[in-house]
Amino acid sequence: MKLLEETCQKIFPQDSRARDEARNRLEQLTMPHWALGDLMDLAVELAGMSATIKPSFTNKVIVTMAGDHGVVVEGVSKFPAEVTAQMVYNFVAGGAGINALARQAGADVNVVDMGVNADLQDLAKSGAILNKKVAFGTNNIAGGPAMSLANARQSVESGIEVALELGHKYDIFGTGDMGIGNTTPSTAIAAIVTGKPIEELTGRGTGLDDEQLSGKVRTIKKIIEINKPDPENGIDILAKVGGFEIGGIAGLILGAAAQKKPVVVDGFISTAGALIACKIEPFIRDYIIFSHRSVEPGHKYMQKALGCTRPLLDLNLRLGEGTGGALAMNIVDAAVAVLTEVATFAEASVASSDK
Amino acid sequence: MKLLEETCQKIFPQDSRARDEARNRLEQLTMPHWALGDLMDLAVELAGMSATIKPSFTNKVIVTMAGDHGVVVEGVSKFPAEVTAQMVYNFVAGGAGINALARQAGADVNVVDMGVNADLQDLAKSGAILNKKVAFGTNNIAGGPAMSLANARQSVESGIEVALELGHKYDIFGTGDMGIGNTTPSTAIAAIVTGKPIEELTGRGTGLDDEQLSGKVRTIKKIIEINKPDPENGIDILAKVGGFEIGGIAGLILGAAAQKKPVVVDGFISTAGALIACKIEPFIRDYIIFSHRSVEPGHKYMQKALGCTRPLLDLNLRLGEGTGGALAMNIVDAAVAVLTEVATFAEASVASSDK
Repeated sequence: MKLLEETCQKIFPQDSRARDEARNRLEQLTMPHWALGDLMDLAVELAGMSATIKPSFTNKVIVTMAGDHGVVVEGVSKFPAEVTAQMVYNFVAGGAGINALARQAGADVNVVDMGVNADLQDLAKSGAILNKKVAFGTNNIAGGPAMSLANARQSVESGIEVALELGHKYDIFGTGDMGIGNTTPSTAIAAIVTGKPIEELTGRGTGLDDEQLSGKVRTIKKIIEINKPDPENGIDILAKVGGFEIGGIAGLILGAAAQKKPVVVDGFISTAGALIACKIEPFIRDYIIFSHRSVEPGHKYMQKALGCTRPLLDLNLRLGEGTGGALAMNIVDAAVAVLTEVATFAEASVASSDK
Repeated sequence: MKLLEETCQKIFPQDSRARDEARNRLEQLTMPHWALGDLMDLAVELAGMSATIKPSFTNKVIVTMAGDHGVVVEGVSKFPAEVTAQMVYNFVAGGAGINALARQAGADVNVVDMGVNADLQDLAKSGAILNKKVAFGTNNIAGGPAMSLANARQSVESGIEVALELGHKYDIFGTGDMGIGNTTPSTAIAAIVTGKPIEELTGRGTGLDDEQLSGKVRTIKKIIEINKPDPENGIDILAKVGGFEIGGIAGLILGAAAQKKPVVVDGFISTAGALIACKIEPFIRDYIIFSHRSVEPGHKYMQKALGCTRPLLDLNLRLGEGTGGALAMNIVDAAVAVLTEVATFAEASVASSDK
């Protein structure tokens, strides 16, 4: 049996006993009933994921998956494709947004070359990045599939491998992405899975003007017409309109869920990866924490398709890299602190309400 | 000249040069323009408050102001009044929500007895709390003023004193409250300042049912009819319908602003304190960070009256104590990290967009 199937067989729903125990304790804390709202809901989720009411997520990692996209020749991004590789060097040097925000959250950053269109072997050899390169960028999806079905599967299995390797060291994962042009495949994935009109889903990415935005909408329509992916088959969607880093993110989510570890999903691209993962194995939803609502208009529909109506944060972020996930790890820590550190009425000898 | 007037004379708008410099640097960071959205807006504010583009808020404190309220005899809270003092002991023991969330955020908790209806001298003598007790609880505001004008002034000046004392050690303040019954005076303050109907402003506090909520609305109407505070005079509003901890919070905000230090304002009660402070000196708005949107329905109108349409967090919190402020201190740290740690395009040799 292949890694993908083995992994899916290890993904189960959350532990309902730990959820009940957590809820029971939270209801007795020295505060009005459920007065810490969403933090308490999150604490129940974390208990359910980790099957304990004393969860601990001290060791945190953001996995930033990088890949290039043939579709950039269609003019769908304001930035030149070379920026993908340049940003990998920036990550390694510690100068990018994700480096700053991961440091703040006490998380490590692990960069994975899933398919950057540049030779990054020196970085991989020195241990600065992980090398899971499937190819030097995808094909132009406005002219045909992004990659073969075998490569789609390989990119997901590479993500699983990363999750398993890092799982020895880390208690919680955050997803991240880097890939110039990758809002285009992500929007295509969103359109296929949610069925919403492409006009409603498509955003300005790194900063398109109105005319460029119209062009992007036309390109995405063409991508879907030409490729006709099977909307119920995650690997088929990924192969036809996806990207290597999106497949890596899907695999990371599957691998985290198989280890019963929470995975904090970042923004638009990461959620496209989560949609692919969910088509492969729907139980992954039980291990996802939705970090934030992106500025990209399609994001809310993608989150809704995954069962999330209100992510933790809404701060007009549209960077990716894992930045929203890193920020949300603070909220995860806070939820754990509420569950594990606050006294009950009985423990603190405080009178409870007159209900 | 008295402390209140001296303090107000030291409150100036933010430093516009530092704001401009911060904005200029943020626009050159290795990411699409303003891609970290609200974090970048916050970074500009923090630079403006501290008059530097390398601000540092390592030393953090949440000041939890406690006081009792005569109005509880009207049945406006589900919890008995004794809980105020019991919770002070819980804070000192480290078992309350604010203790857990402040620890998570790397902040100390400083509890101040502004007017608890219990003898807490032992706690004050041992240094576990600060003693600024004005009286053993306010008068019942459904029958007349909460306190004398002299006591209102004293409570605000006590808050200023706390800010000045703690200012030697701390770079950033968070406001917090503890006082059974204190959503009632806070709602009255909100009604007076915002002019909104009391029905729209009044919430369930610690968990009132429909009938109790109607009673609370009637009580608040009576409070305002009887007391007729001058809506333009912060000390008059505080004296007639306020509370000692609300005055303390107002003073803390004034004292923080006079030291050019950010003050993270928590929920409904803290924002009532901010409304009082703003009536005394409107420039305090330049030093406030709005942490979250409370479940209490009046909160959004109060924040709007202070110029805030979107606080940082919206997590269905309704605890107070400073918990939302503690949580938001993580976001403050993140904003500082973005401003001070992320490389510019030039520094990182990354190609910028084709604009």
